[in-house]
Amino acid sequence: MTEPFPLLTDLYQLTMAQAYFDEGLHADAVFELFVRTLPPTRRVLIAAGLEQVMEYLEGLQFGSGDIEYLRTLGRFSAPFLAELSRLRFTGSVRAMSEGTACFAGEPLLTVTAPIIEAQLIESRVLNLVHLQTVIASKALRFVLAARGRALVDFGMRRAHGQEAALYAARAAYLAGFEATATVEAGRRFGIPLSGTMAHSYIEAHADEATAFRCFVESRDPATTLLIDTYDIERAAHDVVKLAQERRERGASAGVAAVRIDSGDLALEAHKARGILDAGGCQAVKIILSGGLDEQHIERLLESGVPVDAFGVGTALAVAQEAPALDMAYKLVEYAGTPRLKRSPGKATWPGRKQVFRSTVGGTWVSDCIALENERPAGHELLHEVMRTGRRVTAPPALAEIRAHCRMQREQMPEAVRTLEPGSSGYVVSVSREVEALAVRLDAQMAARL
Amino acid sequence: MTEPFPLLTDLYQLTMAQAYFDEGLHADAVFELFVRTLPPTRRVLIAAGLEQVMEYLEGLQFGSGDIEYLRTLGRFSAPFLAELSRLRFTGSVRAMSEGTACFAGEPLLTVTAPIIEAQLIESRVLNLVHLQTVIASKALRFVLAARGRALVDFGMRRAHGQEAALYAARAAYLAGFEATATVEAGRRFGIPLSGTMAHSYIEAHADEATAFRCFVESRDPATTLLIDTYDIERAAHDVVKLAQERRERGASAGVAAVRIDSGDLALEAHKARGILDAGGCQAVKIILSGGLDEQHIERLLESGVPVDAFGVGTALAVAQEAPALDMAYKLVEYAGTPRLKRSPGKATWPGRKQVFRSTVGGTWVSDCIALENERPAGHELLHEVMRTGRRVTAPPALAEIRAHCRMQREQMPEAVRTLEPGSSGYVVSVSREVEALAVRLDAQMAARL
Repeated sequence: MTEPFPLLTDLYQLTMAQAYFDEGLHADAVFELFVRTLPPTRRVLIAAGLEQVMEYLEGLQFGSGDIEYLRTLGRFSAPFLAELSRLRFTGSVRAMSEGTACFAGEPLLTVTAPIIEAQLIESRVLNLVHLQTVIASKALRFVLAARGRALVDFGMRRAHGQEAALYAARAAYLAGFEATATVEAGRRFGIPLSGTMAHSYIEAHADEATAFRCFVESRDPATTLLIDTYDIERAAHDVVKLAQERRERGASAGVAAVRIDSGDLALEAHKARGILDAGGCQAVKIILSGGLDEQHIERLLESGVPVDAFGVGTALAVAQEAPALDMAYKLVEYAGTPRLKRSPGKATWPGRKQVFRSTVGGTWVSDCIALENERPAGHELLHEVMRTGRRVTAPPALAEIRAHCRMQREQMPEAVRTLEPGSSGYVVSVSREVEALAVRLDAQMAARL
Repeated sequence: MTEPFPLLTDLYQLTMAQAYFDEGLHADAVFELFVRTLPPTRRVLIAAGLEQVMEYLEGLQFGSGDIEYLRTLGRFSAPFLAELSRLRFTGSVRAMSEGTACFAGEPLLTVTAPIIEAQLIESRVLNLVHLQTVIASKALRFVLAARGRALVDFGMRRAHGQEAALYAARAAYLAGFEATATVEAGRRFGIPLSGTMAHSYIEAHADEATAFRCFVESRDPATTLLIDTYDIERAAHDVVKLAQERRERGASAGVAAVRIDSGDLALEAHKARGILDAGGCQAVKIILSGGLDEQHIERLLESGVPVDAFGVGTALAVAQEAPALDMAYKLVEYAGTPRLKRSPGKATWPGRKQVFRSTVGGTWVSDCIALENERPAGHELLHEVMRTGRRVTAPPALAEIRAHCRMQREQMPEAVRTLEPGSSGYVVSVSREVEALAVRLDAQMAARL
């Protein structure tokens, strides 16, 4: 996964590094990672991916094969490549804890390092933080919509590759999902696994009732049967019959849940619940799946559908209506001097910053983006996590991150929790010191032209 | 990348395999991979990812660590795990060549293998084909929009993880992009690399003119300068001055291109072109970037903007408005008997199928999905690529795939090439034999109930 993969970067990071090397520019640079603006369907984001950034930075190293490939490009000098082969990440990182809720403009992560190092890591750091923040922020919406019903990640097949599948499972779990179907994610991150059955299993048998019986025998004591391959009502009756037969011969009912994956889910769930309850299968749960997004789940629950859990695939795994965030990693200081950029629509705030969040009665009321040495009201959201290339604390357990995110949900103002598109009105201000610094730098720059 | 990663699968693939094992079901199953319906903004897809599927199937093998982890789950029997540790993929695959244009309902890939093998591979095969087909299909739209201008993939930072970044670069290249900025993709797939410079490089210097001079010296003989950090017109004048100075002392101009990444791109490109041309820099190219999608590029070119190349990031790397396809992998035959499923909205056509494409005067006129042994008009799109677990031919070079895709673009009817949302009206029919088979199976199933 985050095995050192140093050439997973943009070419310009290396050509700029060559130029810095030639010029002898080795002073510390400070870069901040933040999201410029939120998509219309996001009122808040959940920061995620920091653990993978730490692993990447600790392991960063160019192997001889990497250097040899770069040599073949004919763009790099031998002294620079020799320097590159010795390069390790020696800088510091401050970051929001994973699972922290955050807003547009707020630095999620700050890197301070010699400019070659700080620049080189940009592409992969963004790539890692972007992916998990995209997915955790989408997952939060599902969790808010599901009102305590269990959510299971079914998205591996449509996630964008291997890392996306594994990190989506992780990001969804830390944001409040209960389980994943992706076995490798269970193994790697200790996420509870959950699985049901596929239509093909039913179709491979002479008939559905036989398929149900075989699957239950094989997977005793409890399993989930998929009941929408041919006719949901008939399948629900078959489940009842199967459970009765098993109980009559002294076995457990053998069926923990049924899954409905197509059709009018509300209607079918009501019918299935009725048939199961009438047949003494009140304990058999109902899982709904099939192209579900968070609005669909919200509507189903508002209509009072009898459901115990949701399987969520594509909409989560690619964050379907907002698969990307306008996330940037920008220089704010070099060699002790604050920096800014004035590109239209992409101007940045200069200087090393901190985010302060104010809370009243256990609910957030506002955030303030201030210079690091200011002390406005509120608690600090960015904490030092790496110093001179080494972590300052042990990595938090995923369960701990998940608990932190649950706490964030509880402290979120109602207007931030709402799924409706539009602004929450939550106040994120930029301190007057930051504004004054930007004005001062602008004037200096204008004077130089 | 596609290193054997056997637990990157859904849990139910393994629990179904356990059940098949217990029941002694080992006959051949035939699964077809297809896209049910296209997103509103796709009139056609480009099949991609087959090479990675081949690598995955050839390497598939459960290691002792994998088996040990599965044992800890307490869901699998010792005899089944022993069988799993010996499992290799021994089946056959027929597929459309990568780069082939295809439509909803058409099988892109068909797997024939003992049911445990054919079922187990579902999740990862979908994951691999889905990702690259999503990106190649989006890339095609950029290529059609760009009317011969060069397109460069800048998307790594916002692609969903490592594999997504590398396979997006590959998929975009095979669909007609010229280059990628992702170094590892250049190394791994032989894609030409292209890179410019970032705003941070400019900001790290005392002033922009100094930054330009240093970058050009370092990267002689030719490089791309980013001119929108502060003021585009002033930066364009600085480029002219720099080129003149260099020419006066007998060096090359040193600047191959300028990049504009923000603001009103059409307006700024016209201004920059004017300044460059007036200053004797007619040979300096203009690259535009900054949140570009294919419609934006189409509009820019319709307005006659002076541009030589486009850098494309997010919109390509996550296929922004259609990051997922409704792609499925469905059982169509087991133990020699055709199968179907009747789930509402998700019914499947039974039997082993082939796609036949008819051409008139070098342009496609219609496709027909028929049973494998039918012989309707047209040429076959699915070819055998693997038999008893081994490839039947050497993997095609990426350049060859790219040439095949270019040919597809040339043979595409005008209504399919259009970027407008909506149907192309292109006819994809299902043969009467397939329909008759479905009716026959439906009747058989009804008789059994």
